Amino acid sequence: MQDIITLAQRAREAKAAMAAASGKAREKALAAMADKLLACRDEVFAANAEDLASAPELSPAFRKRLQITDKIFAYMVNRLKEAAALPDPVGRVLEGRTMPSGLQVSKVAVPIGVVAIIYEARPNVTTDAAAVALKSGNAVILKGGSESIRTNRVLATAMRQAVCEAGLPADAVQLLDSTDHGAVAELLKQDKYIDLIIPRGGKGLIKAVAEGTRIPVLKHYDGICHQYVAGDADEAMAVAVVVNSKCQRVEVCNALETLLVEADGASRLLPPIAAALRAQGVELRGCPETLAVLPDCLPATEDDWGTEYLAPILSIKVVHGIEEAMEHIARYGSGHTDGIITSSLDLARRFTQTVDSASVLVNASTRLSGGGDYGLGAVVGISTDRLHARGPVGPAELCTYKWIAIGNGNLRD
Amino acid sequence: MQDIITLAQRAREAKAAMAAASGKAREKALAAMADKLLACRDEVFAANAEDLASAPELSPAFRKRLQITDKIFAYMVNRLKEAAALPDPVGRVLEGRTMPSGLQVSKVAVPIGVVAIIYEARPNVTTDAAAVALKSGNAVILKGGSESIRTNRVLATAMRQAVCEAGLPADAVQLLDSTDHGAVAELLKQDKYIDLIIPRGGKGLIKAVAEGTRIPVLKHYDGICHQYVAGDADEAMAVAVVVNSKCQRVEVCNALETLLVEADGASRLLPPIAAALRAQGVELRGCPETLAVLPDCLPATEDDWGTEYLAPILSIKVVHGIEEAMEHIARYGSGHTDGIITSSLDLARRFTQTVDSASVLVNASTRLSGGGDYGLGAVVGISTDRLHARGPVGPAELCTYKWIAIGNGNLRD
Repeated sequence: MQDIITLAQRAREAKAAMAAASGKAREKALAAMADKLLACRDEVFAANAEDLASAPELSPAFRKRLQITDKIFAYMVNRLKEAAALPDPVGRVLEGRTMPSGLQVSKVAVPIGVVAIIYEARPNVTTDAAAVALKSGNAVILKGGSESIRTNRVLATAMRQAVCEAGLPADAVQLLDSTDHGAVAELLKQDKYIDLIIPRGGKGLIKAVAEGTRIPVLKHYDGICHQYVAGDADEAMAVAVVVNSKCQRVEVCNALETLLVEADGASRLLPPIAAALRAQGVELRGCPETLAVLPDCLPATEDDWGTEYLAPILSIKVVHGIEEAMEHIARYGSGHTDGIITSSLDLARRFTQTVDSASVLVNASTRLSGGGDYGLGAVVGISTDRLHARGPVGPAELCTYKWIAIGNGNLRD
Repeated sequence: MQDIITLAQRAREAKAAMAAASGKAREKALAAMADKLLACRDEVFAANAEDLASAPELSPAFRKRLQITDKIFAYMVNRLKEAAALPDPVGRVLEGRTMPSGLQVSKVAVPIGVVAIIYEARPNVTTDAAAVALKSGNAVILKGGSESIRTNRVLATAMRQAVCEAGLPADAVQLLDSTDHGAVAELLKQDKYIDLIIPRGGKGLIKAVAEGTRIPVLKHYDGICHQYVAGDADEAMAVAVVVNSKCQRVEVCNALETLLVEADGASRLLPPIAAALRAQGVELRGCPETLAVLPDCLPATEDDWGTEYLAPILSIKVVHGIEEAMEHIARYGSGHTDGIITSSLDLARRFTQTVDSASVLVNASTRLSGGGDYGLGAVVGISTDRLHARGPVGPAELCTYKWIAIGNGNLRD
């Protein structure tokens, strides 16, 4: 077995060199990673084919996540190039002032240090996560799913060569190359060397990681996302936004799971929304008032309100006023992404002020809550934690800061 | 025993009202808290006298921390007034942009929610912590030392009345009114209701809290603080800054513990620095090269380099070059506050770039690393964590943020 302590120590050593590296050097490394990936395209596909061949028992959905297609490969290369081109998050002066004492104080963004990312099948996370971590000057330890280990080995080797050729330490990118569960348990013990762990995957994985370590964990839990359609909503906009929120991609955390419709608009808005959703094959489950408008809708149970389907199913509830809508969201939501569809400035203000979620949207698809559509570029995920980073976790969120204070012999009275 | 679950639930209920309260309302509440404190001055002193009388076995140092003097009382009232006057940290737009899609994205500061603060003897923390927490729109649960429970009861009652009279929920300030250890253990279990715990006190307290809860903990560990005096340092400045760093107050986390002196300046700088420190009653412990310059200095052992004395003792090491100084700091320091005294811009740049501490100072006393001298106003402490908040924890650091995105029917392609 790979020596996990050595792995963590090497990351820690690379941390100092990465913190000292210029933004230009990190940019060069990311560009080199994209080039190197292109150069070993055949190897990547061969390793991926081996991974797929060695696990014939996997479900089609799992195999789909595991497989690198031409499209996914192009996306992986582009993500690295995009990360290279993003503005440097390190060294930003987040705030600062000259105090009356003459002390020049500034709060400057610096890398967090050593970040470990534990994820499941998709091998594109290997390059995506490395891109975000290195952009922000961190050393990264990658632990992907066992099923994709051959693919990940090729990807990690390519990235390490590129980083090294760009003059940065190869150990800024390390793969935990083991399919042994004990290896992860050992990694979780390295609080002396690792500054942050990001688990990406199902609830079980996240919970196991969070409970098994003293290292800070940035959690990416469920998205039980809502759209509240106010009574004054434009019909065409409501249909388009709800359908896009639910159907653009059903298995992801910012997909819509529950629709709340204002009672005085229900008979006008629910039928066209339901028709459009059904045309996309979505199963509808409604409260009694919904069923009165949509008689062929299935009845929703209490469980439906707290379920993240990640599937073509939508629960629908008729509410009486924005307060009831916001109370429902506070009670059943997961604080991930919640939206309102309205033409009223007052309702929009109240909703964005009161709803306590990482992303609060007005007249926009829940699928837009993420790094790209917020202008952050690449992200490693969407945090449901309240501390440090909330919502999209991009290069800026993988920074911490230090205070620099420059005086001229300043003393405390 | 007070019902801890009910206490936590009440805080959670107050959280929503606090999040909805305007900055003006919170300002009014803080001003009212200062007024109310003044109005019940006699009660505060009487309760404090009772606390002191009921624990005659306590050490003089402990009694000193427990006692509210006229000066401390005035300071407590002023802290509340100052907090009222600070700019509102809630609602700051931390970043934002209109995307090419027309989506208007902004990242807006919001309160963290329910913050629990667990501390030891000093009753002024009761009002200081409440001031910072309420300024940033949080509901706060205060758990002070058992020895100050009578004082804390009077303070909490006064603050609750003031908050209530200002139109905010009294439960925005709650005292965990128990001297039972089981009560804290129960509090640490309330991860459903409490968003953050800040333990303030000794290492043992912090460790016990961090290991006993799944709630995020903002840790305030040791300050093993260094000053590195470069060979080109101005003698008068070096003497003044070192003496102030060590002696202005010895028992606090940003007091100096280890002095590093560049070899080529040791014979010029060490004698006057040592003389000034000894005049203040500081015991000096040096490396062999230090002893060569200061023959009557005690020899330092390996343990000295990793010790936070919190006492009039200073360890001194002669180093050869800034690299050795920075390596010593990386190895033995605690990442709290470290400074350089130099007239060289190049050395100042290298030091501030490389040293990985929450505060990195140039030509300034370590005692200046804190909220007031950085222009942050009141703080609840100085975090040694890397995530969320690093260094002084003021009202801005007790905020999280949410993303608000306003569209006009924006969809994801």
